[in-house]
Order: sequence, then structure tokens, then C-alpha cells
Amino acid sequence: MIETRDGYAPQKPETLAAYLSGIEAVRRILGGAPEQWSVVEVGDGNLNLVFIVKGPGGGVAVKQALPYVRLVGEAWPLPLSRAHYEHMALTEQARLTGALLPKIHHYDETLALIVMELLEPHIIMRRGMIAGVEYPNFAEDISTFMARTLYFTSDLALTADRKKALIAAFAGNTALCKITEDLIFTDPYRVAELNRWTSPQLDPYAARWREDGDLKVAVSRLKLKFLSSAEAMLHGDLHTGSIMLTPEDTRVIDPEFAFMGPMGFDVGAIVANFLINFFAQDGHEKAPGERDSYRDWVLDTLERIITEFREKFLHVWRENPTGDAYPISLFQGADGAARLEIERQAYMDRLWTDTVGFAAAKMVRRILGLAHNIDLEWIEDRDRRATCEARALTLARDMMVNAPRYPAVADVTAAARQVRRDMAHF
Amino acid sequence: MIETRDGYAPQKPETLAAYLSGIEAVRRILGGAPEQWSVVEVGDGNLNLVFIVKGPGGGVAVKQALPYVRLVGEAWPLPLSRAHYEHMALTEQARLTGALLPKIHHYDETLALIVMELLEPHIIMRRGMIAGVEYPNFAEDISTFMARTLYFTSDLALTADRKKALIAAFAGNTALCKITEDLIFTDPYRVAELNRWTSPQLDPYAARWREDGDLKVAVSRLKLKFLSSAEAMLHGDLHTGSIMLTPEDTRVIDPEFAFMGPMGFDVGAIVANFLINFFAQDGHEKAPGERDSYRDWVLDTLERIITEFREKFLHVWRENPTGDAYPISLFQGADGAARLEIERQAYMDRLWTDTVGFAAAKMVRRILGLAHNIDLEWIEDRDRRATCEARALTLARDMMVNAPRYPAVADVTAAARQVRRDMAHF
Repeated sequence: MIETRDGYAPQKPETLAAYLSGIEAVRRILGGAPEQWSVVEVGDGNLNLVFIVKGPGGGVAVKQALPYVRLVGEAWPLPLSRAHYEHMALTEQARLTGALLPKIHHYDETLALIVMELLEPHIIMRRGMIAGVEYPNFAEDISTFMARTLYFTSDLALTADRKKALIAAFAGNTALCKITEDLIFTDPYRVAELNRWTSPQLDPYAARWREDGDLKVAVSRLKLKFLSSAEAMLHGDLHTGSIMLTPEDTRVIDPEFAFMGPMGFDVGAIVANFLINFFAQDGHEKAPGERDSYRDWVLDTLERIITEFREKFLHVWRENPTGDAYPISLFQGADGAARLEIERQAYMDRLWTDTVGFAAAKMVRRILGLAHNIDLEWIEDRDRRATCEARALTLARDMMVNAPRYPAVADVTAAARQVRRDMAHF
Repeated sequence: MIETRDGYAPQKPETLAAYLSGIEAVRRILGGAPEQWSVVEVGDGNLNLVFIVKGPGGGVAVKQALPYVRLVGEAWPLPLSRAHYEHMALTEQARLTGALLPKIHHYDETLALIVMELLEPHIIMRRGMIAGVEYPNFAEDISTFMARTLYFTSDLALTADRKKALIAAFAGNTALCKITEDLIFTDPYRVAELNRWTSPQLDPYAARWREDGDLKVAVSRLKLKFLSSAEAMLHGDLHTGSIMLTPEDTRVIDPEFAFMGPMGFDVGAIVANFLINFFAQDGHEKAPGERDSYRDWVLDTLERIITEFREKFLHVWRENPTGDAYPISLFQGADGAARLEIERQAYMDRLWTDTVGFAAAKMVRRILGLAHNIDLEWIEDRDRRATCEARALTLARDMMVNAPRYPAVADVTAAARQVRRDMAHF
């Protein structure tokens, strides 16, 4: 059933200018009169309406939830409340990271609509990485974003009552979580109508995936963790399509999948998308080796992201031991401090092991599941694409089943290079 | 600040009869006229008022929350909402286990008051075990209670949206959870005003506990799990003081600490209280060896509880694979079923390892923390008591730091016997 709500109507370019003209803050940004504003619907995502509105003085972006999945239509209803959760997450993230997301100008709960800063000349990161653009500030920015949003919404920073208030606040975002539960942790490992892959090349892989008991157990353990470990507020969909940036400036967008879940899921999303892009480069280079140095940039940056994330997370933990977990009063004196520091390192090791597993799950779903990455989809030669995909699947399977064999990010990047060298062909 | 609430007043014997006379169902049970009813306040617990009301036709028990901790007084406020959570948990437990708890006759949200079945001739299990009474049905009953309440409120049985609705429903019970977080997972490992122990005999133990880095890390990991792993609806305080029984009939009472937490915490509470009782028997026997056969009953029953819990949990899992975790669609055919069965066993092994750790934490808090067990407190000879306690502490420390070295319940019971033999004296 498609949700209806009093006062809700999907906006059109014709109605939106009139609506925005009633919002003082937005009118001031756009400047001039509403008749002078251009409104274009540009949503190329899977779920929502997105409008770009420009006036003589400036522009804004407007995102509105539809009561169904845009990509599929009314056959797949999806609640409007996701705008509520997105706005709540944006508010928390802004408080914690400041400039690393778009400014929010206005939120309308009834219309499930958010008016935000128009990011120009930012592009979706995934497109930049397909084109081979280097982003020298990205590792610094995304590691800060992850360290601060995850740490400060965890039991390490919060008292239990504040943490549980956050859990309750996000507990209703079940419809969005269910998309993740089905499309990432379940469908790629069984016969499911929505699955697709580069066929016939990858048919044997898809068949093997459905028969691989160890892999199905591994992904089920990850799913259980996703369902039951409320470690921190996650972005919930932190892939390179949820990042808009320039070489100088990084913004994380679209946290409508936000909920209280396992930290490794967010970090793993970044790892997965960097690895996919690494493997996809063979499909985009015009001559063999043309993208060698970009491949190095991708893996070097991935290593920097994880290394800096760890350092920053540890830093904010040491500086803000304000949560009910690991209370500082238990670890007084030089001996106590030393023992706690050892445990902090062990905590980060466990988080990294989770990350390896979740990254693997995110790689598999982009190749055998419903929603694919343009990194791979845009490779027109299907044999070449299948080779890139088979390499990613091979690495992902081992990461998921044998996560402890990758104790550091350098083990993952080395394995990625190795798999690329070893697998000449799917 | 002491909570006030319109319409709330602590009941007295004088007011309660008039109140109950307005409740048709209760009037019918008690029979006769209100003037014929006897009302006695019997609360010997730490938190609430408890009345026994008897009439010509029968009796009821009435439990009412006070806005503070009864044991301490108004200096320690505690919200009335705990009656709400207790009633919600009782309702779920009744749905899942039927006769294993008292019947609920009436619930008054405003008065934070529950009218329930008067259990006669049931006694508090802890008292029976101090007296050396055997309960031949207990292993059967408590294993059923734990298997059904934990399994059917977990991701193994529930879809994610129903599970998250439960999480949200219990998320507000933070004040009660905080008592556990402080008194079990924190205070016994630091200097805290509320701590007490058999002094001076155990002074060196208390001092060593506060300096033991491995132990403090182990208990902090358990605390983090308690804070962040919403595996199932817990009773939250499942010790032998929360059980009323006869040799034939078992009832679990007082789930006001209920919340969505790690399953091992409930199972560990039972394990801890059986081990404490085992060690306490040396303080209660009038001649050495007098309680030998009761000691055997205690440990044999503990083994039966854990073995039957595991069998029953696995049974309901196999029969009701209705949850979003480990979806049955991933494990089709003979190979899939065999692989899932291996994983079910591994799941139970992990749950047991959690149980060993939580049991250890619950043993320590009863000896070095605020709330002690009468199993030990009633041993008048302080040297003898300290010997019993030192043995329990010694076992608990190893269980907490080295939980994986106790892969089965028989390893725990064997270690308990060994520690008792080895430690002639504190």
C-alpha cells in the first residue's frame, strides 16, 4: 500500500517555486522574484525526487521522498518517514563534523522535503573516480567524518541513557534497513528475482555463491550483527555515490539509511567502493597500464583512510572518555592507562575485522545483487567487465570467510593487487 | 529529585483494600467483603512495596513501585516507569511460557501497581537452596523459560521490524539498566562507596580486583556487550531470588530490569547463583560432608539446566526459523541444512562463552559489590564465609578472563569442585 499523508504531495517544478517563495531563508539565498527562478528535477538516484533551484542570487537543492522506490515505482512502497530519519542524521552529523555535509536550509516534515545547500562544482565521487580524478583531501575528510560520527554516537562517548534515546529515535527506520538486509545480506546468496549479474560470463560465480556454505554462514553472521549490534549512529549507505566533492572540498550526503548499527558497516562501505573502483580501472583504461598510477592512488588513499580513521578514532577516545563503556575510573594511574591503551588498540582491531567482512558483503551485492555500481556497469565490453567483477568477487569471498587473515588494511590492498595479477580472466 | 505523578500515591494496608474492592476480578478472587480482607506489607526486596492480601475466597499479591530505592530511601530516586516495563515483560513472558510466572490479575499504570496471583506455598528459591532443598523440576522449567523467552524475542524468530519495535519499547528502562551497569560491571573493580565485603578477610582480594588490568578489561568488554548488543528481551535480574517455587512448580517473578540485551546475561545469572550456592554450602553444613549430596545436586542441576537450555533453544530454532537472521532460504537442501546445523551449534557455543563471562561478573558483584546474596551473608562465622567467598572469587576471575577455557558447563562444574578442594582457606 502506498502511504498517503495529509498535506503531502510530490512537488513539481511548477509547484516548488511557489512553495520555496514562502520560506524567508531560501528566498534570501535565491534572490530576485520566484518568476526568475529555474527549477529542474535531476534525481538520478533510486529513491527520491531531487530538484536544483537557481535564482539571481544563488541556488539550493531540494530533496523530497516519494512514498515508493522511484527506480521501481508504486509496486515497491517505501515510507515517507525516511526524510525524517535523514534529517535527524544530518542534524547529528552537522553537530559532529560541521562542514563535511551540505548546509540544511529548511526541513518540512509533512512534505518529507529537505532544502539544502547547492553543492557546486561538486560531483558525485564515483563519477570522478571512474574518470580517474585524484582527490588529495578525501582521506583526511572521510576519516574525520567516520571517526567523529561513529565515536560520538557510541557507548564510548555517550552515557547509556543518551545512547538508548538515539536507539529509540532511529528504531523506526526499519523499511530502509530492510532494503539493506535483503539486498546486501541475503539475495546475492540465493535465487532472487531482483538479482542480476554479467551473464553468461559470471553464471558459474552466481551458482557457486548460492552453494557456498561457508560464505552463507559468514554473511549471515554479518547480517545478525547488522540486526542486533547497536554500536553507533551509522550513515548506513556510505558509498562513493553518497559523496559529493571537489579536489578541495568533501561533503557526505543522503543519510536516509541512518540507524544505530555496527560501525564496521559504514567503514566497510568505503573500503568496498574503493576496491571495486580499483578492479574497475582495467575496464576504463584505453591502453594497458594507462591507469597504473590511478590504481596506486586508489589503494594508497584507501590505506590512508583506514590509518587516519584509526588514529582519529583513538584520538577522540583518549580525549573524550565520557561514555559508560570503558569508564576511565577503572583505569587510573600509569598501569591502568597503559592497560586501557592496549585494549583501545584491540578494540580497533576488532572493528577492522568487522570492517573487512562488511566490505566484502558490499562488494558482492554490487556484482551479484540488484544495485550495481557504474564503476563496473559502464565497462561496455562484457568480457572485460566480467574479468574485473570476477576478481572483486574472488577477493570479497576470501575477505568475508577469512576476515582475520587480513589484520591490516595493507593486507587487503596487497591481496587486491595479487588477485588482479593472478586472475588474467574470469 | 523524587518523581511525582498525578494520581500516584504509595499504598498502605488501609488504602489498598478499598482500592482492590473496585476491581471486579480481584474482588471475585478474594471473596467476602473488604472488611474481611487482611492486608500485610511484606516487601523484603530492595526496591518496592509488596502486599499480601487474603480474603475468605483466596489471596493476591500486590507489587507497587516507589519513586526511590526502598533499601536506600529518597536519596536514591528511581522512576515509577519500572512497573510499566515489568508489566510489559510479564505480558511477553506469559505469552511465551504460559504457566512459568504468576498470573497477572490487574495492572494500574498510574499507581505503578501490579496485582498478581498469590503464590502459595512457594518460597524464594534462594532460601530453599540455603536450606538444602532439592527441586527436581527446576532444570526442566528454567531451561524452558530461558529458551523460549530468549529465542522468541531474538532476530532468529522475529522479523527486524518487530524486533526493533521491542527495542524501542524497552529503550526507556535506562534507570534500571544503569543499576546493573554500575553495580555489576563497574563498582566492584574500583573504589566505590557502596562496595562492601567480608573485611578484613577479603581485603587483599578487593585490593587485587582493583589492580587487575586483565580483569578490568574483561568486565569492560562484558559491559560494552550489555550496553550495545540487543539480542533478545532479557528478564534482566534472573537470580535465585527472582524465582518462587515448590518442588513441583516454578515461577519466575520481578522482571522490572527487562530490556533488550545479550542473552548470556540471563543465562549467566542462573549459573552464577548456582555456583555461589555451591560454594556457600560449606558455611551451612553442621558437620563436614553433611551437604555433599546437596552440593552434587546443585552442580548436577546446573549441568542439566545448561544442557536442556541448549537442546530446547536449538529445538525451537529448528522448528521456528521465522526470523530475519539466518534466513532458511539461504540454507536449502540437505547440504544447506547440514551447514546451518553446524552454525547453530557454533552459535550456542558463542552464547555459552558469553554466559561464562556474565556469570563471573555476577559472582563478583555479590561478594565485592553492594548487593550480596544471603547464601553467603547468612554464614555467621566470618572466616568460614570468607573462605567460601574467596573460592567463588577465584573461580569467577578465571571464568571472566579465560572464558574460552570453559567450553562446556562440565568444565565450569569441574573447576568449581577443583577450586573448593584446592583452596582450604581464604
